[in-house]
Amino acid sequence: MSNEEIKAQRHRERQQKIKAEVDKRIAKATIKKGVLTVITGNGKGKSTSGFGTLTRAMGHGLSAGVVQFIKGTRECGELNLLKQHGLEYHVMGTGFTWETQNKQTDMLAASAAWQQARLQLANPKLDIVLLDELTYMVKYGYVELDDIIGAINDRPPMQHVIITGRGCHRRLIELADTVSEVQPTKHAFKAGVQAQKGLDW
Amino acid sequence: MSNEEIKAQRHRERQQKIKAEVDKRIAKATIKKGVLTVITGNGKGKSTSGFGTLTRAMGHGLSAGVVQFIKGTRECGELNLLKQHGLEYHVMGTGFTWETQNKQTDMLAASAAWQQARLQLANPKLDIVLLDELTYMVKYGYVELDDIIGAINDRPPMQHVIITGRGCHRRLIELADTVSEVQPTKHAFKAGVQAQKGLDW
Repeated sequence: MSNEEIKAQRHRERQQKIKAEVDKRIAKATIKKGVLTVITGNGKGKSTSGFGTLTRAMGHGLSAGVVQFIKGTRECGELNLLKQHGLEYHVMGTGFTWETQNKQTDMLAASAAWQQARLQLANPKLDIVLLDELTYMVKYGYVELDDIIGAINDRPPMQHVIITGRGCHRRLIELADTVSEVQPTKHAFKAGVQAQKGLDW
Repeated sequence: MSNEEIKAQRHRERQQKIKAEVDKRIAKATIKKGVLTVITGNGKGKSTSGFGTLTRAMGHGLSAGVVQFIKGTRECGELNLLKQHGLEYHVMGTGFTWETQNKQTDMLAASAAWQQARLQLANPKLDIVLLDELTYMVKYGYVELDDIIGAINDRPPMQHVIITGRGCHRRLIELADTVSEVQPTKHAFKAGVQAQKGLDW
């Protein structure tokens, strides 16, 4: 064999080992169920990842719902597009609480948004539900943690749920099947770059 | 003032302080430019976040392109949906290299995919370009790092670029404006849950 042939042969052998490992892991993963995913951490891309999964699911013809907690005072590109495909959605629409500076109206809005989330979590026609920025509602004490855990546990068994937001409560992390933490290594905004339409909202 | 009123007053003051801080940071961020974002790390949700940003951008009427390196042998929900809205895309379509086990055909496919990426990075009509899983092409030596850096530097100045994949090369991280690292705290697959259509692909 030439040197090139030996190299190619080694590459093939390495790849065969990886394939055997991957195949073994795939064969072991036999459970099919509704998965609870939490995307937390201080980095950029948490809500975006949640909406990305809705795009994916809807692209396969699954039905999806979203409740946006906190955000929603400015036009949201993802909603613009996905609602054309029948996304069920509710927007809390009060903006960040430091914008409103009024605890009572925030609590009322949070409670109304949570009622919509409960309806989605009880709806067997929804294959996937995104609870965007829900973590802050727990942190501020606007929605009862036990209510959230109860509604998630009682949901249709094949329904997938995604929770996004910083500082997710420990009990939600324990409950989740998949947890990703997005760490900010670098952020353009901190270097003086404006938030831009299409990229940041 | 009653106790409740005092509490409400304190809440308002705290929120006002946060708002002042946020407003100051927003006022400082005056640069408008094409942003290079890297989403790396071993956690789940990197490509999904990239596709989420395309959904967002397209929802605002921006034009977007994607080149998918490595993946692409099975139907992709995000592509299904976004191509209905005019997404420009190229799929390398060889699957993971441990599936093909043939370095030479992988390199040819990688090189063809990179040519498509170059075209997108040179196209002033594209507002945003996603180079999905590009990091592996650098790691395997299938695409020259200098070529990538050159094409990114020479792109239209307002074009946003997103690179996803594990183990992003240090020089791409240095070049990026925003870098998020997705850490896997927990993964359903490891607990024996199957990859499921709509959630995982």
